[in-house]
Amino acid sequence: MENSFQIQPVGVINKKAGNIYLEIRPDYNKALSGLETFSHIMVLYWLHENDAPDKRSVLQVYPRKNRANPLSGVFATHSPLRPNPIAVTICQIMKIENNIIQIKDIDAFDQSPIIDIKCYLPEKMNTSSIRLPKWAETKAK
Amino acid sequence: MENSFQIQPVGVINKKAGNIYLEIRPDYNKALSGLETFSHIMVLYWLHENDAPDKRSVLQVYPRKNRANPLSGVFATHSPLRPNPIAVTICQIMKIENNIIQIKDIDAFDQSPIIDIKCYLPEKMNTSSIRLPKWAETKAK
Repeated sequence: MENSFQIQPVGVINKKAGNIYLEIRPDYNKALSGLETFSHIMVLYWLHENDAPDKRSVLQVYPRKNRANPLSGVFATHSPLRPNPIAVTICQIMKIENNIIQIKDIDAFDQSPIIDIKCYLPEKMNTSSIRLPKWAETKAK
Repeated sequence: MENSFQIQPVGVINKKAGNIYLEIRPDYNKALSGLETFSHIMVLYWLHENDAPDKRSVLQVYPRKNRANPLSGVFATHSPLRPNPIAVTICQIMKIENNIIQIKDIDAFDQSPIIDIKCYLPEKMNTSSIRLPKWAETKAK
């Protein structure tokens, strides 16, 4: 486990005039074909502002930066502070034009590097089997 | 977008005697605290068998390796062939002991490097707004 892996950005998140665009590198145009048959996508992006040794070594946080929540391991949260600063989020597609995907909303900083796009397939799980702690029951603001 | 990013594995998927264990590096023990309050986790792992230039340059595939499905861009699929070979999957926790998370099931090769664990938070979306192509409506085998 001593080796490390290389990630190449495939695009960038561009926020302008109240709209949000996923600008995919034109050489990946073909990788987008068929995406228009889906309503939603899973976007993996790099939390570039947290790609620093001191931030990648944080192991525990207060969820949602609220000290009323129990101090938790970063793997038990979606904190942007984590050993490998990758965020995963589901977004609704508004429009696709060539290599530009316009999406409805994303909780990401402008200019975050995109590292992967996957079609969104709903989880087929028994929702009664899902258990969460209290702090996670409400949606993050 | 010319730069690249470094991923360090945080553990490894270990399949033995019909059981599946996520063996997290002991130096990340603290990052697991609180995970026992969740029933499910999101696991990000490296598709190490596809980390090669020829495989990372594949842009289109037949979904689920079925030529009856329309040739699709890899970003419109969950194909293990993609520019950055990262898989994202939801798993049910069976037991956590120190740095070992036993899970119910995972569609991953034995010894795949784990790159992140996040708590599973169900999507709060209007399911009637989700649109999928025909090939994606059934669960992969």
